[in-house]
Amino acid sequence: MDVVATYKEDFISYLNKKIKVKEPVNLYEPIHYILQIGGKRLRPILTIMICDLFEGNTEQAYDAALAIEVFHNFTLIHDDIMDSAPIRRGKETVHTKWDVNTGILSGDAMMILASQCFNKYEPEIFKKLLLLFNKTALEVCEGQQLDIDFETRNDVSITEYIKMITYKTSVLVAAAMKMGAIIADVSDSEAEKIYNFGLNLGIAFQLQDDFLDTFGDAATFGKQIGGDILENKKTFLYLKALEVCNKEDLEKLLHLYNIESKSETKIKEVTALFNKYNIVDITKSEIENYTEGAFVTLETLAISDAKKQLLKNFGLSLMKRSI
Amino acid sequence: MDVVATYKEDFISYLNKKIKVKEPVNLYEPIHYILQIGGKRLRPILTIMICDLFEGNTEQAYDAALAIEVFHNFTLIHDDIMDSAPIRRGKETVHTKWDVNTGILSGDAMMILASQCFNKYEPEIFKKLLLLFNKTALEVCEGQQLDIDFETRNDVSITEYIKMITYKTSVLVAAAMKMGAIIADVSDSEAEKIYNFGLNLGIAFQLQDDFLDTFGDAATFGKQIGGDILENKKTFLYLKALEVCNKEDLEKLLHLYNIESKSETKIKEVTALFNKYNIVDITKSEIENYTEGAFVTLETLAISDAKKQLLKNFGLSLMKRSI
Repeated sequence: MDVVATYKEDFISYLNKKIKVKEPVNLYEPIHYILQIGGKRLRPILTIMICDLFEGNTEQAYDAALAIEVFHNFTLIHDDIMDSAPIRRGKETVHTKWDVNTGILSGDAMMILASQCFNKYEPEIFKKLLLLFNKTALEVCEGQQLDIDFETRNDVSITEYIKMITYKTSVLVAAAMKMGAIIADVSDSEAEKIYNFGLNLGIAFQLQDDFLDTFGDAATFGKQIGGDILENKKTFLYLKALEVCNKEDLEKLLHLYNIESKSETKIKEVTALFNKYNIVDITKSEIENYTEGAFVTLETLAISDAKKQLLKNFGLSLMKRSI
Repeated sequence: MDVVATYKEDFISYLNKKIKVKEPVNLYEPIHYILQIGGKRLRPILTIMICDLFEGNTEQAYDAALAIEVFHNFTLIHDDIMDSAPIRRGKETVHTKWDVNTGILSGDAMMILASQCFNKYEPEIFKKLLLLFNKTALEVCEGQQLDIDFETRNDVSITEYIKMITYKTSVLVAAAMKMGAIIADVSDSEAEKIYNFGLNLGIAFQLQDDFLDTFGDAATFGKQIGGDILENKKTFLYLKALEVCNKEDLEKLLHLYNIESKSETKIKEVTALFNKYNIVDITKSEIENYTEGAFVTLETLAISDAKKQLLKNFGLSLMKRSI
């Protein structure tokens, strides 16, 4: 078994030991449920992996890893309410299985439970972790708000879009990694580098998600190709196309994103416009910029070349969606 | 101006300085709104007062006081969504003025902002305050869940009811006071006494709220007399009546609390049953027990008699609803 699989298995054991249903059961059952229906456990694995890489005591990383995973799942419950999403990871969402009020309150409790996961750290480390955790959590809320705001705006710039995905998803990946570094007690500057590595990789990952949703392979992507287009989602591809296309195509694109349609024709028309303006190459190049940015930061870390290679391989495997 | 009025005025200035609307405005405007529409500011005043009483530096108490007030207002936003309440403090609730999603997300952000209020404390104090804050916050969620559970249960005991009101309201009052003691750097045992004082006083206050809702003076209570009866709210009065009444009256009471009626007749019928079983005296005696419990703890504190008297007077003024 490779080391990543071991981190994951050990983390899941730890989670199962820590997250139990207790009274009042109507509060804790939904928490237990959302944490049991799976997910890649990517963020907690990163916390443990980075701690290990910096020769920290990985046993001490599990609580921070759990905090990150519990917080992430809290955001899923509340986001699913806001999006009226019925399904998550192939199962009913919490507010569907129970009700909206249960989703709100169990989510609130999870946010607090996540924060309590840090309780065993010594005051100095405790404060460092909590400050990072709260800063990140607030950014995630701001990212979610920007995402909601963008739905009704027609003038979203690429810069604003990058800020939104950074806040909504990348900061948590970056914080998960930095916590591993903090627990391993590395210098602040090393921890900051790890944060930037995670941030850039997270942005690259999210941009690739936009890309694969339209240009991916249905067999390996796991979601319907063209889903974002049918939902009129303002992705990097769409915003970039708006930026570079001529007036006629601009109106065509705006019109297509103004209608409710679940037809393959709409997907084809939008995709054709994306192809006309070379959005595939532009997006690939943007993804590469962020991936390269991550790897350049990686090179400056004070760890062995073998370890750099390990992190780089993990980043590459993420981008290839092999884990 | 008396000292309590000064605490309040200074606290409000501090709050106004700290809580500003910033980007994204759709996230921060509702936060600013709920914190500006008033309230008695009872909890933050208690934090500052207790810190002062123990000769702590009150300037250091404002951040903890703000954390408590921001957290309290976060619970109001989410509770109002769960209760579908249109009005709070005579103004539109956040989810009415904006929408449910805004209420959920702004509430989430407030929970994090509350926790960030502790950022300036030194690691040792920071950890003490955060542990108390999170423990209390989770209890408040559990109390809210118990309250929801009780709505559909017909077998709620008085013990369970006291636990619910303790978690839903008293623990936050007690924690507000204990934080003042922690910031003044008193011993753990003194801080614990202050906590117990606040807890007992908080329970007495909540029981009195139940009492006044049915037997209070409309002119001074500020809410409609009999409101709890019309809402079929399972208060101490109702649960105690169920416990002590005969079989015939039990069925009568259960029936009355099973119908939707906004009539004065219903209020009169229920009140008559309460009077028949002497619920006024039973409740008054219960309130006295908790008030006395608070004052007995107060006597054991290592502070001057003058200060004890000050705290006692404040407790009495609370019970008289003069502030």
